Amino acid sequence: MSKQHKLSVLAELVNGSLDGDPDYSIASLASIAGAGPGDLSFLDNPRLAAELGTTKAGCVIVSTEQEAPEALNVIRVDQPVVAWAVILELLHKRKRIFETVSSAAFMGEGASTAEGVGVGPGAWIGDGASIGARTEIFPGATIGPGSSIGEDCIIYPGAHIYHDCSIANRVIVHSGAVIGADGYGFAQEETGDPAEPVVHRKIQQVGTVVIEDDVEIGANTTIDRAALDSTVIGKGTKIDNQVVIGHNVTTGRHCLLISQVGIAGSSTLGNYVTLAGQSGVNGHTTIGDGVIVGGKSGVMQDIEGGQGRVYLGIPARPALTTKKIYALIDRLPEYSKKIRNLEKRIAELEGGQGEAT
Amino acid sequence: MSKQHKLSVLAELVNGSLDGDPDYSIASLASIAGAGPGDLSFLDNPRLAAELGTTKAGCVIVSTEQEAPEALNVIRVDQPVVAWAVILELLHKRKRIFETVSSAAFMGEGASTAEGVGVGPGAWIGDGASIGARTEIFPGATIGPGSSIGEDCIIYPGAHIYHDCSIANRVIVHSGAVIGADGYGFAQEETGDPAEPVVHRKIQQVGTVVIEDDVEIGANTTIDRAALDSTVIGKGTKIDNQVVIGHNVTTGRHCLLISQVGIAGSSTLGNYVTLAGQSGVNGHTTIGDGVIVGGKSGVMQDIEGGQGRVYLGIPARPALTTKKIYALIDRLPEYSKKIRNLEKRIAELEGGQGEAT
Amino acid sequence: MSKQHKLSVLAELVNGSLDGDPDYSIASLASIAGAGPGDLSFLDNPRLAAELGTTKAGCVIVSTEQEAPEALNVIRVDQPVVAWAVILELLHKRKRIFETVSSAAFMGEGASTAEGVGVGPGAWIGDGASIGARTEIFPGATIGPGSSIGEDCIIYPGAHIYHDCSIANRVIVHSGAVIGADGYGFAQEETGDPAEPVVHRKIQQVGTVVIEDDVEIGANTTIDRAALDSTVIGKGTKIDNQVVIGHNVTTGRHCLLISQVGIAGSSTLGNYVTLAGQSGVNGHTTIGDGVIVGGKSGVMQDIEGGQGRVYLGIPARPALTTKKIYALIDRLPEYSKKIRNLEKRIAELEGGQGEAT
Repeated sequence: MSKQHKLSVLAELVNGSLDGDPDYSIASLASIAGAGPGDLSFLDNPRLAAELGTTKAGCVIVSTEQEAPEALNVIRVDQPVVAWAVILELLHKRKRIFETVSSAAFMGEGASTAEGVGVGPGAWIGDGASIGARTEIFPGATIGPGSSIGEDCIIYPGAHIYHDCSIANRVIVHSGAVIGADGYGFAQEETGDPAEPVVHRKIQQVGTVVIEDDVEIGANTTIDRAALDSTVIGKGTKIDNQVVIGHNVTTGRHCLLISQVGIAGSSTLGNYVTLAGQSGVNGHTTIGDGVIVGGKSGVMQDIEGGQGRVYLGIPARPALTTKKIYALIDRLPEYSKKIRNLEKRIAELEGGQGEAT
Repeated sequence: MSKQHKLSVLAELVNGSLDGDPDYSIASLASIAGAGPGDLSFLDNPRLAAELGTTKAGCVIVSTEQEAPEALNVIRVDQPVVAWAVILELLHKRKRIFETVSSAAFMGEGASTAEGVGVGPGAWIGDGASIGARTEIFPGATIGPGSSIGEDCIIYPGAHIYHDCSIANRVIVHSGAVIGADGYGFAQEETGDPAEPVVHRKIQQVGTVVIEDDVEIGANTTIDRAALDSTVIGKGTKIDNQVVIGHNVTTGRHCLLISQVGIAGSSTLGNYVTLAGQSGVNGHTTIGDGVIVGGKSGVMQDIEGGQGRVYLGIPARPALTTKKIYALIDRLPEYSKKIRNLEKRIAELEGGQGEAT
Repeated sequence: MSKQHKLSVLAELVNGSLDGDPDYSIASLASIAGAGPGDLSFLDNPRLAAELGTTKAGCVIVSTEQEAPEALNVIRVDQPVVAWAVILELLHKRKRIFETVSSAAFMGEGASTAEGVGVGPGAWIGDGASIGARTEIFPGATIGPGSSIGEDCIIYPGAHIYHDCSIANRVIVHSGAVIGADGYGFAQEETGDPAEPVVHRKIQQVGTVVIEDDVEIGANTTIDRAALDSTVIGKGTKIDNQVVIGHNVTTGRHCLLISQVGIAGSSTLGNYVTLAGQSGVNGHTTIGDGVIVGGKSGVMQDIEGGQGRVYLGIPARPALTTKKIYALIDRLPEYSKKIRNLEKRIAELEGGQGEAT
């Protein structure tokens, strides 16, 4: 982080236009509120524009049309947060920790590692598993027999991938994530014994898991193997921590699954589906392209795809409907009074006495 | 999977009656939609019976009374899904990976392993722990001092069992499951310091966990040790992924606890209780035999047992009541209008002007 | 546990007054219902006072003003549960398992361990990490490069701490907890490709995690590293199992976060905040000192702090409001009938026919 970067160079890197001193240099990155003269920052949310007047940052990345104080160095780009991500990659280039296979790693028979693979001490690569070029596997991670991991992946400590799973390229699996554990499948077997009339007989889960390119899987997330066939996570999908994905689920490309989401078995998500935190999807349910499901919602039925389709609530309904209903629920005390009042007035009109239960 | 199996043999294996060619052979299993002539499939859901007309499967397992095209080989049984489980076990017999104690396993003093135990490299078996015959413990799993594991168990990579826990026979513990961590118990200790008037003093959790026979515990599920006495999971109970079971909870036999369920401390479930995904049970709560709790519900009070007792909602009420209430909630916009309309009409009858707030 | 403890000694230890035989001895602890003559027990809940009449305990710790049978030995204290915690610590003094650095531990370059540190076999301490005096690190735990762990900590098997995190003194981290994984941050990058118009570009998470003194972190809980700056868990905060804490969250001191709680990124909790099980907090949300949020609630907006401020529901409102609304929701079937009835009566008054939709 001690290297100096000229604003002219950074602006070019992100295809931005610089309003300010091209020779001014920054060495580090900081949030707009906490930045000092040696820091670069960014402003993505126009509602926080006032911070441009008070920031001490050496330079701020802003959107093309953003007004800014003249004295402040700014780099103008179409998408400030994307430019920010690009510059972060430059200034905080991830350093690999393991670049070779440790002699203290446990390598199964026929396990293969391509060039540049790093495997930490205490990691286990099962028989016949294959690890693609430049992939890094941390201590305590395990790769089951017959599984294949692509190129440039990162498998963090204590991530566990069962047997015969297939993981493509540039996939990141965080600590404690479990890929390929048995799906939850049992047959209710009658026993004829009145004391225990039924037992849950395990249905062997003989399918697998397929993770496509550029997927990121959060800490302690679980993705179960299919009963038959495959559970599939589509390219570019980003999964947060502690998400549960049941057997035979398929997600489309570029979905966002926020923390503590649960998707029950055999459900299907289209492309660009977002499920917000703690929401759940029933089994055998289809959610179409582009749908957004709000936090804590419960999707009980299929939802057709379409831009701007936002669902919310338990059970999930179109978000506008649910918000209207929430507002009406808040007014229930008032409605309750109104009804009592109406009853009284009607009773009076009917010539009796006001009666309200 | 390349071995051929005659339909006559398979039918006999599952006590089924074969309608078709006894010498026809299948080599593999597939879903009814994806099956080809070399595949066996099964139909459990009568609503999907139309698939019998289009499937390319070599044979389908169906229920005794199921109608099927004459040209299709079918094996008729009482419970197709149970027959399916039996045949899966035959065709996909689980192969053990570890059949001996690896020299790279970390074995504590006095740790004992019965015949046929497999312990993978990097697994830790604490002092005085005992492992029953034919149990398989994967790399990265840990068994705390003094714990005992029964026969024919599978402890997957990175499953962690704390000290002095007791696990019976044929128990499966998936990766990342944690058994016997401290229950969440603290005493609010007054300090006399106005800046920090109370601190949460840890109450040592000195009880244990008892897991009975034939239990399966999903990936990243946590079962806490008791404060005193034991947390108990009854025989045959099947627990899905990322379930939380608090200290001193007791579950009956053959319960089904679906993913992301949480059961707070000291609660008790009867036998054959089902808790669907993301539901929660308050502490010190009793749920009787056979009760089913729907997804995302919150059980705040005891529920009496009984066949067909289904509960739903936050707070959980009988499911029919909750569904009726959900339907009425959906009609709130209509009721709101009705009330406004009634107010207007009454005001007119009263001789005033229509008034609606 | 076989050592005998005189009641006079125990009473003095907890600053209690003994009503009973000072020379009577107990050797173990049990719940009031299960205790025998050799056991000490305690009564914290006055509603269970009837158990004092039937208990077989050798002595019971009770509150100062509690009535109790004359024949029963009781130790009177201000806070029975605190005295109980103190005596538990005496009788069940935690025995350390690892008191030295195992030769089978994986120690990185420049990793330092202070006096009395124990590191189990198969644990990994990354380059330049430092471990404070008497801290115990179990097998399968990993400490990333550059992280520092304070004194007297316990890091249980399979707990994973990423690089450059800072953990203070007397912190307990249970199995499967993950501290410092990447926060969930992506930039929506336009591609110009109509087939995949947007991809989620990773924003490097270059901040860290700071855990202050006396924090306990439950099994399989995840605390993400900050995007920039730090995610902070305040002193004395106790976190249960399977809690999700997003990047840049700050919790105050002595908070209680019960199992399966989720706190989205950049939110801030004051001191002494309690979030009950399965509740969730939206991103960029502030909850003030002392607020209690009930189970399964969803906090969508800031909540001002203050003693006795209890919130409940989705969205979370003051608990009394929510309970009133729950009661009214239960009466919706009745209100629906009342409205229909009102409509009929008005129609009659209007001289038309009763009309009810």
